[in-house]
Amino acid sequence: MKILILGGDGYLGWPTAMYLSRKGHTVAVLDNFNKRKWEMEIGVKPLVPVATLHERIKTWKEVSGKDTQLYVGDLCDGRFVSKVFEEFIPDTIVHYGEQPSAPYSMIGARKAVETQINNVVGTLNVLFAMKRSCPDAHLVKLGTMGEYGTPNIDIEEGWLEIEHKGRKDKVLFPKRPGSFYHLSKVHDSHNIEFACRVWGIRATDLNQGVVYGIETDETILHKKLNTSFHYDGVFGTALNRFCVQVIIGAPVTPYGKGGQKRGFLNIKDTLRCVELAIMHPAGKGEFRVFNQFTEVFSVNELAELVREIAARYGLLATIERIENPRTESEEHYYNPVFTKLFDLGLEPHKLSDVLVGSMLSVISRHKDSIDKSAILPNVKWDQKHVNETSHAT
Amino acid sequence: MKILILGGDGYLGWPTAMYLSRKGHTVAVLDNFNKRKWEMEIGVKPLVPVATLHERIKTWKEVSGKDTQLYVGDLCDGRFVSKVFEEFIPDTIVHYGEQPSAPYSMIGARKAVETQINNVVGTLNVLFAMKRSCPDAHLVKLGTMGEYGTPNIDIEEGWLEIEHKGRKDKVLFPKRPGSFYHLSKVHDSHNIEFACRVWGIRATDLNQGVVYGIETDETILHKKLNTSFHYDGVFGTALNRFCVQVIIGAPVTPYGKGGQKRGFLNIKDTLRCVELAIMHPAGKGEFRVFNQFTEVFSVNELAELVREIAARYGLLATIERIENPRTESEEHYYNPVFTKLFDLGLEPHKLSDVLVGSMLSVISRHKDSIDKSAILPNVKWDQKHVNETSHAT
Repeated sequence: MKILILGGDGYLGWPTAMYLSRKGHTVAVLDNFNKRKWEMEIGVKPLVPVATLHERIKTWKEVSGKDTQLYVGDLCDGRFVSKVFEEFIPDTIVHYGEQPSAPYSMIGARKAVETQINNVVGTLNVLFAMKRSCPDAHLVKLGTMGEYGTPNIDIEEGWLEIEHKGRKDKVLFPKRPGSFYHLSKVHDSHNIEFACRVWGIRATDLNQGVVYGIETDETILHKKLNTSFHYDGVFGTALNRFCVQVIIGAPVTPYGKGGQKRGFLNIKDTLRCVELAIMHPAGKGEFRVFNQFTEVFSVNELAELVREIAARYGLLATIERIENPRTESEEHYYNPVFTKLFDLGLEPHKLSDVLVGSMLSVISRHKDSIDKSAILPNVKWDQKHVNETSHAT
Repeated sequence: MKILILGGDGYLGWPTAMYLSRKGHTVAVLDNFNKRKWEMEIGVKPLVPVATLHERIKTWKEVSGKDTQLYVGDLCDGRFVSKVFEEFIPDTIVHYGEQPSAPYSMIGARKAVETQINNVVGTLNVLFAMKRSCPDAHLVKLGTMGEYGTPNIDIEEGWLEIEHKGRKDKVLFPKRPGSFYHLSKVHDSHNIEFACRVWGIRATDLNQGVVYGIETDETILHKKLNTSFHYDGVFGTALNRFCVQVIIGAPVTPYGKGGQKRGFLNIKDTLRCVELAIMHPAGKGEFRVFNQFTEVFSVNELAELVREIAARYGLLATIERIENPRTESEEHYYNPVFTKLFDLGLEPHKLSDVLVGSMLSVISRHKDSIDKSAILPNVKWDQKHVNETSHAT
């Protein structure tokens, strides 16, 4: 199958490219390196150095014998997107090519606008290019569980069978996203559903939980094949931050009461979920949504888990709740449905001692590279005044 | 009250400005004249010439003695928006400043992208400017009934009380918009709801039906105060097109089966609804939605109505269904709730013989200016190939 991976230089994009390449697919990657630029802008970097995409592709060729086509350019450039689709004519498009951080989108007006333009316009251009060059191809789009927010009812997989005043309909699940980033993904979902309905596009929207893990079966083959590990307050996620805090002997810091529940999954399961979606494509004109995660934890449970496992390695950690920079429910009902990917054959890697242990071990080896000042949050959801051009650290 | 009208040069923006000015409010208008540029681009114009905004403001001063502050600039320019809000510090913002045409947004990728950037980014900049300069002000935002699509359940006013698997919640009404334009308004609604929830912004989202009518109590005071009348396939609406077709002796042309039902209202009621929303502002942090129309007609009913009334004026018209350029349901359930504005005191002008008669009379006086080639639709929702740079007429 010919697979085009948008955002192929990213945390998930590059591992996905290698995984699918190894399975025998013809893989092309597209990126504009915006993510690396955004890291520079706010002054953070991944814990372990990441080779350039050119180096990764060359190394992957040496390691696996497989070629990977590279397209360098911006999804917001409609002409570029058209040309890529005309030339490569993909069977499947895996779309990770978006600004991925909620805090980044909440820094101020410019970043909110940049996030929504980047994500919404990029996706629009992809839809138009599909319509023109490969109307029968399958779009596998990465969304997030954060689009739903934390409603007081069960979260179904994208669609909701509704009964209202004695009449029935099936509607898009009403979402209540928690940042301008999450909103951009909701906008995408609406635009994609429309393209399916009106043009007959096939699409799978993967509403993914928080991904953890640094290693896949391919990244471990060579140090130039590794993926990024972010522990900072903007691009990092809770589990990563907690592990880094343990290693530097700092308290583990849940935001607020810590009762926020989220879905989580191992990076290896992300790759498998994407593969399952690809191998069982959406029907013509179908807008299909999978909730993509394997376990639910509250932030407190996660902090406690890290503390316990660290103790087994002789690392003593304390837990210290800090003021929540976000506006979100800290105690809420949470029961999202996630059966569709399991029905297709997903066998999850659960969060285990071994995984957390291996993360702690990797972090420990790079302890000297940790930027302690980057870990705590500095973007507030309701801050009164923002100077977006000043970047004192 | 200090009221800032965004899109103050438009079909509704200018009449609203005069109406509120006459009621004693301090009114400022903002526009970048994009709508006039878009008309030029596709080669259409209003039936009756429209004075420039500078001329209108000057004439309004002569006629009423009232001053109107003018801001010329683009809502997508965040710095400009900040400056305007810092200077004028409005109590209320009436936001009409968006690309208003569904067919325009469906011409191709560039117009779809332009529409979504223009509308979404403009609104984001307004929200950030409100947060910074007037966090207690009230945003009255024009949305459209077309955001909802035609669900098989009753359309509530923005929010839906839902019961699912024995649990309850109140959620944003799930929408299924019918064009990239309608989608842009859905994106806006989500962004605004978020700003209300997180920053405590006050907002009223007016999900408006199709507006008809050319005259208000202010536009008739001077010929340089009139508003635009569009009958073309891009910016015109069904009732306007039907009336023009009758005058030139062409068949009245519903799209497809003509069973599409929509909410309609008189332009005079738009002004009154906006005033009612302003005088009864949303609460702190409240995202309030009003469905804004006064009657429901199917396209066939509208065509039949025009035919009958024209006959009384001695004009014989035939009805000829044409292929529907849009992808939409042509026979569907439609029962939108619209009680909130009536609860606030709206007394509607119903669509009458007199109104249609007066439209026919105005059109008749400008019969020689009608561009017959502009009336029929030339933008298809699922067209296979588009050349966006060619504009042969």
